[in-house]
Amino acid sequence: MKNAIPNIVTALNLVLGVFAIIFTFQGELTYAALFVVSAMVADGLDGRVARYFGVSSDFGKELDSLCDLVSFGVAPAVMAYAYMLKDFSGGAFIAAAFATCGALRLARFNVNTSTVKGYFMGLPIPAGGCVIATFVMLDMKPSGWLFPLMVAVFAYLMVSTIRYPDFKGKDGEPIRTIPAIITVAIGVYILFLTFKSVLFVPFFVYALFGILNTIFGLFDHRQAV
Amino acid sequence: MKNAIPNIVTALNLVLGVFAIIFTFQGELTYAALFVVSAMVADGLDGRVARYFGVSSDFGKELDSLCDLVSFGVAPAVMAYAYMLKDFSGGAFIAAAFATCGALRLARFNVNTSTVKGYFMGLPIPAGGCVIATFVMLDMKPSGWLFPLMVAVFAYLMVSTIRYPDFKGKDGEPIRTIPAIITVAIGVYILFLTFKSVLFVPFFVYALFGILNTIFGLFDHRQAV
Repeated sequence: MKNAIPNIVTALNLVLGVFAIIFTFQGELTYAALFVVSAMVADGLDGRVARYFGVSSDFGKELDSLCDLVSFGVAPAVMAYAYMLKDFSGGAFIAAAFATCGALRLARFNVNTSTVKGYFMGLPIPAGGCVIATFVMLDMKPSGWLFPLMVAVFAYLMVSTIRYPDFKGKDGEPIRTIPAIITVAIGVYILFLTFKSVLFVPFFVYALFGILNTIFGLFDHRQAV
Repeated sequence: MKNAIPNIVTALNLVLGVFAIIFTFQGELTYAALFVVSAMVADGLDGRVARYFGVSSDFGKELDSLCDLVSFGVAPAVMAYAYMLKDFSGGAFIAAAFATCGALRLARFNVNTSTVKGYFMGLPIPAGGCVIATFVMLDMKPSGWLFPLMVAVFAYLMVSTIRYPDFKGKDGEPIRTIPAIITVAIGVYILFLTFKSVLFVPFFVYALFGILNTIFGLFDHRQAV
């Protein structure tokens, strides 16, 4: 029974992802976005629960990746389609490309056994999925091709080799460096524009983090995982 | 480039799965079902293409499982929801349960390294997904709780230990045994009832196969994978 607990939390992540798709189907995009963010909470818990009970398993890891693709790859892609992509020719392909980049990100992560503490290679899929879901929640409709472009950029960031801090506080402690200050500054600024952005801002700033780092070299230069 | 070809076929499987969800969203359930069946064709090809080019990889296997969950777990679940489950209280949970059983099936398959030729343990997820998708395509609406029950039974068959023939023709050659004759007989019979059942029948008969075997012991008694 104890062995099953973390897998139940992982399954909850998937159930929330399926609910996000179903609520999107019913036109309830705000609830759909909240399900995706809740799935991220479940996703953050399962590994910790497994380690707490000392029951980490290969089965659990496989299940985790499978559920992540649904909650943070497919659900946000379908949300983006229902929100604005459906109005663009080829919008379905952009949605499918987002989910595909998420799958490539997960498959690469699973086979890449070399690990350096402190960084991920490419935007992690939960952050990629949440930035799309919470943007949809904002209910701001950007003009022209800005929204499809945004989805494509976040899809690319996931499969890129751009380094992202993992906030686990080991070694480089990236959260305490200068970019963190910039992050908070940008975050608070956008936050003041609209209260609804409270969930969107942290994910957006995190995605921006990696790009700023690549351009300005704000973090140290060790290899990423 | 040669290394990428099988992964492109696998990605096509995922793209078709996302399209199935998007077409479900637009109320086009027949197209959605055809996308799921097409995804099964792509899924059957990628491994063969990889072996043909001699480029089978762990990355490809991880990607394959990820894509299978979307095309044969989530897409049919969403289709089943849009088709009839939405009219039942708790219908969303039955849809989510189908996807979850699909994920459990895939995770179990990936960590289970012991292999016996000729059989799968539990209904393979492509067959489970296609039986739901092609049933929706039939546009027959069963009365009462029959449809939710049917989805739940196929979900259970995936995580069961019931043995299913893999039709690879090794050792037991299950395709040439008595059950194959029964299969064709039942298949042709149902086929005569309606032409639209042409896609549904083979998947349904395959799912039935495992149950008949468990009850009557039609195959031999070696351990399954």
